[in-house]
Amino acid sequence: MHKCLWRNLLKNNAINKLFTIAAITLGITACANSNVKNDVNTLPKNIIFMIGDGMGVAHTTSYRYFADDKATKEVERTVFDELLVGTSSTYPDDNTYVTDSAASATALSSGVKSYNGAIGVDVNKKPVLTLLERAKQLGKTTGIVSSSQINHATPASFIAHNESRRNYNQIADAYIDEKINYAPKVDLMLGGGTSYFIRKDRNIVNEFKSLGYSYVDDLTKLNELNTLPALGLFAPVGLPFAVDSDALPNRVEAMTKTALNLLATQSSDNGFFIMIEGSQIDWCAHGNDVACAMGELEDFAKAIEYAKQFTEENGETLLIITADHATGGLSIGANGTYDWKTDKVKQINSSLAVIIPAFLSLEKDVTDKVIQSTWKKHVDFDLSASQIETLKSALSSKLKKEKMTREIKAIINDTTLTGWTTGGHTAGDVQVFASGVNSHLFNGQQDNTDIAKKLFKQLNSAQ
Amino acid sequence: MHKCLWRNLLKNNAINKLFTIAAITLGITACANSNVKNDVNTLPKNIIFMIGDGMGVAHTTSYRYFADDKATKEVERTVFDELLVGTSSTYPDDNTYVTDSAASATALSSGVKSYNGAIGVDVNKKPVLTLLERAKQLGKTTGIVSSSQINHATPASFIAHNESRRNYNQIADAYIDEKINYAPKVDLMLGGGTSYFIRKDRNIVNEFKSLGYSYVDDLTKLNELNTLPALGLFAPVGLPFAVDSDALPNRVEAMTKTALNLLATQSSDNGFFIMIEGSQIDWCAHGNDVACAMGELEDFAKAIEYAKQFTEENGETLLIITADHATGGLSIGANGTYDWKTDKVKQINSSLAVIIPAFLSLEKDVTDKVIQSTWKKHVDFDLSASQIETLKSALSSKLKKEKMTREIKAIINDTTLTGWTTGGHTAGDVQVFASGVNSHLFNGQQDNTDIAKKLFKQLNSAQ
Repeated sequence: MHKCLWRNLLKNNAINKLFTIAAITLGITACANSNVKNDVNTLPKNIIFMIGDGMGVAHTTSYRYFADDKATKEVERTVFDELLVGTSSTYPDDNTYVTDSAASATALSSGVKSYNGAIGVDVNKKPVLTLLERAKQLGKTTGIVSSSQINHATPASFIAHNESRRNYNQIADAYIDEKINYAPKVDLMLGGGTSYFIRKDRNIVNEFKSLGYSYVDDLTKLNELNTLPALGLFAPVGLPFAVDSDALPNRVEAMTKTALNLLATQSSDNGFFIMIEGSQIDWCAHGNDVACAMGELEDFAKAIEYAKQFTEENGETLLIITADHATGGLSIGANGTYDWKTDKVKQINSSLAVIIPAFLSLEKDVTDKVIQSTWKKHVDFDLSASQIETLKSALSSKLKKEKMTREIKAIINDTTLTGWTTGGHTAGDVQVFASGVNSHLFNGQQDNTDIAKKLFKQLNSAQ
Repeated sequence: MHKCLWRNLLKNNAINKLFTIAAITLGITACANSNVKNDVNTLPKNIIFMIGDGMGVAHTTSYRYFADDKATKEVERTVFDELLVGTSSTYPDDNTYVTDSAASATALSSGVKSYNGAIGVDVNKKPVLTLLERAKQLGKTTGIVSSSQINHATPASFIAHNESRRNYNQIADAYIDEKINYAPKVDLMLGGGTSYFIRKDRNIVNEFKSLGYSYVDDLTKLNELNTLPALGLFAPVGLPFAVDSDALPNRVEAMTKTALNLLATQSSDNGFFIMIEGSQIDWCAHGNDVACAMGELEDFAKAIEYAKQFTEENGETLLIITADHATGGLSIGANGTYDWKTDKVKQINSSLAVIIPAFLSLEKDVTDKVIQSTWKKHVDFDLSASQIETLKSALSSKLKKEKMTREIKAIINDTTLTGWTTGGHTAGDVQVFASGVNSHLFNGQQDNTDIAKKLFKQLNSAQ
């Protein structure tokens, strides 16, 4: 263990405060950025690769303004601002320029461009070696964290090889069966997915348990995971949206803390490789749901803050963060107005996935009062009389679901001045953030395959 | 003159080729990047500050795909990719987060945040010192180039001080009258604006001539400008769009070449400061006109390529490029489809500012054939039968102009799979590109005011 890592482990502990005072008194210098090696001849022992699914430039920028304390004159910088080093192109290998998560995650995991839908396979559907597999070959401990099911496109592209992201059960099976590229089992997996790992035809969780894996299925019991290998599955598919999770909205942060603390103490002498995904930035943006996206970005930002601190204190780690693509065609400001209403965004307390069904469940002939009170259960600003009328009319429409969805989105987007061009992905370059050992290698513009190629080089001689 | 600058001046000259052959034969190393000083104790003699108005990440990315040679497997990198070093936030000083060009140009010219509409003044409408003024104070030669009128918001914010960008005549007057901050006259100005500089009440061009300025008003006669000070005004307001300019589409490139060649030979011993704006990326994006935007981006990219070469060869220059904000909420891919049709974008040969009036001038009861032939004068792909019907119906509509505009935009955006959220600006961070002396100072994320503050530091001790 690195000499400074204990500080990380003692975080939030009273002893830590006492030590800090003692250290200052004795003139002991703190473990800071100066620990981080930045020499091309020194390679990182550990790699933390974080992916904000769907996280374009407008997403991280909007999070800065969402998080801005309006009581202060300046706009506070975010962890994204502190770590930005470059950008990345994301196009798949099919001349369409717009990638899906599978092709982009395959590019990021293997350095090989592929077709949309490809999980760890090239355009000929042939398996490609991934960073996680290579790390394991080199004797490193490996991990994945995601707020989606752990067999969703992004984590899957680091672990499995399948011609289609839709083959969820096959992909889950591969997590324990697959031997391609000498793929070993991953040492630590945290996320959702019991629907795929505990099935009628096969209970993969039990199979992992029989191989000695610790297992938890309750996010509040993450601290019960004390040994590796370990598996944690906290939802049937993806975890609930942060904005809908009163108890533990920052679940990517919580899983990241558990994962890094476990890896810090239990990794092999060769270090570790972990991929951590903020999966649902993408899902909220697919739904053109701005409050939902802000919740996911906040959780992911907090996870990055923890990883950044870990990296700075550890001194032997490379932290790299990017996105697979941008989602939704999000814009800050829309329809010709030069403003973005963060105060209104902050007043939305539920995702559209909660708000819309709440309205769809109402009777056709409800009163204005019921419409307003249904709204106010989820949103702190009032509906206007004409907005109430619009929602009542949607309720009696033949195309109730489509009309209600459209009208509620319009109210939120018009009120907050948020723009969207699509329910799908867009091809604008995404950002690259980095810290720690050799983080400067990611400066400037690069392709998503270049990120993987650089990481392979950081892995290959790392023993 | 720097020892390598002659290569720049000899560009496109047969002697140059001969010399290159001779140099290779004699083993003389070429003037390359290695000339560029990158030491914080060495400050640049010359600063080239280029601003792509409205140029967000989606804009430069879409240009990469637009310029991509589909015959090759790889996607070719652009000059933007080669020079990217970081990003910049653009918010104005009013909690709206979405800036206009005046506030952002004032931030970029002075390091001071202001309100939307402010030209070189702070929130109290008090004039602020600009980089161009400071450069002149330090004995440097100064210049501006823009494809808008030269008294438009961006160039104006470097030269004038006015409470409103709309006071075009006052701003034009200030270019010759103003003494605020010891503002001297700018030594070289190229762009549009005869409507403001040759008025019934005042002929500012003649005033400049009487002060010894060379003057041209024909873009094809740029090479007649052989001495400084010099003024070139090539259009009443802004220059025609690149996509509509068969004769000389790359007019920012042409003006940049003239300007840099003049400054290289005629600047004071203290060097030069020039601001070069690709003004109309913004205008095309305001019009949600993708082909128009591609034409402007191509021109601006070529201008940057020339400035990059100049910077590399000169060895005493800092080149910094950014945008004031993004415009239009542009997205590559839209409406759920994962594709962007560059072949279709390339088939559009006129701006919407030409296509829409062509349709509005048609008689109400024209035939399908006339609709199709009007379209084919400007666009190489055919209209479908239903699209022809839609345009005919727009022609007979009471709201003919609005409907025609909407329908033609819809045809182009749906065919090319281009998304837009607004006719205005958006607040996503923009990119920062740099080359030359101390270009590394602009690495990472920064605010637009930080760019100016860093440039002031590069200027202040530069003598």
